[in-house]
Amino acid sequence: MSAQSLDRLCQALCHLPGVGKKSAQRMAFHLLQHHRHGARELAQALLDAVNHIGHCQRCNTFCEQPECSICLDTSRDASMLCVVESPADMAALERTRNYRGYYYVLMGCISPIDGVGPTELKLKQLLLQIDRQQPREVIIATNFTAEGDATAQVLMRMLESKSIKGSRLARGVPVGSELEYVDLSTIAHALAARM
Amino acid sequence: MSAQSLDRLCQALCHLPGVGKKSAQRMAFHLLQHHRHGARELAQALLDAVNHIGHCQRCNTFCEQPECSICLDTSRDASMLCVVESPADMAALERTRNYRGYYYVLMGCISPIDGVGPTELKLKQLLLQIDRQQPREVIIATNFTAEGDATAQVLMRMLESKSIKGSRLARGVPVGSELEYVDLSTIAHALAARM
Repeated sequence: MSAQSLDRLCQALCHLPGVGKKSAQRMAFHLLQHHRHGARELAQALLDAVNHIGHCQRCNTFCEQPECSICLDTSRDASMLCVVESPADMAALERTRNYRGYYYVLMGCISPIDGVGPTELKLKQLLLQIDRQQPREVIIATNFTAEGDATAQVLMRMLESKSIKGSRLARGVPVGSELEYVDLSTIAHALAARM
Repeated sequence: MSAQSLDRLCQALCHLPGVGKKSAQRMAFHLLQHHRHGARELAQALLDAVNHIGHCQRCNTFCEQPECSICLDTSRDASMLCVVESPADMAALERTRNYRGYYYVLMGCISPIDGVGPTELKLKQLLLQIDRQQPREVIIATNFTAEGDATAQVLMRMLESKSIKGSRLARGVPVGSELEYVDLSTIAHALAARM
């Protein structure tokens, strides 16, 4: 390729998760050929986001102000705190409109492969938030993966030491699914947790 | 989502081909959480590319200078001109190291669905290039899709009217493939064009 800035654009596009060399080239050609305005918009949006988005001082989610709108909402139920892995998980829970408590976003989970142990997860800020909020119950809504389970166990032990009730989301058969097609360990969990 | 610039970033990421709402969110979270430096780099690369990359005055490929390095290379074979759809196709042909002539990049193909007819393809510049270069043969290397075939037909007619020899890449069984797994129309073409 003769254009240096085209090479550099292709390399930079590879910073995006799930984008390899071939897709990066396709994206670069598409933007240059059909959508230069979109490329400018994307550049500006990236700079704005990187420069303005920090973390909420309370719940640690992405936020432009010192505290996010949920933490500032005093009408929510202060007796409940829900711990999630990412802002996307928080958004998923909010979409259900079934939870009115506060959140804490870990921004990750314990993953020894990636070098993230209990110390890297900034659990201190979570303890601060628990001390400030004094919730009756902490719902641990980490993912049901090996990493999420490990994180949940660490959190459970932490809550026990402070004598706060900890709970996890129920594991079981998803709504709308047919038993025949549900995987074995999900059915086993659903059997064990039958009501 | 409480952060406006996060929403805007997600929307802007959707300008990339093949990126929908969900992947855009995943990309935005990844960049903000793990790779802010990469986001800055990408923004800069986008601006650089959009501001500096234009089209080669001769062959129409992406280029930062008025003319690209291939068009400026006087050691190439001026009796051959190869017409391709995109700079990526040109790069693929260059990688074979089997072609030493010049190129012309259409930057698209005839596609009535997208509103691209013969007039939108800027064939005038191709005619100018043919007049300037006076090639003995024009190789039409458009893709073997319905749109590429239509484009090739239009180009062939154009070349006929100027009494210049036009040729197309051979259609046939790909190197390394087993007949059993090759699609019918490819085998039919290979039979018809047997040597």
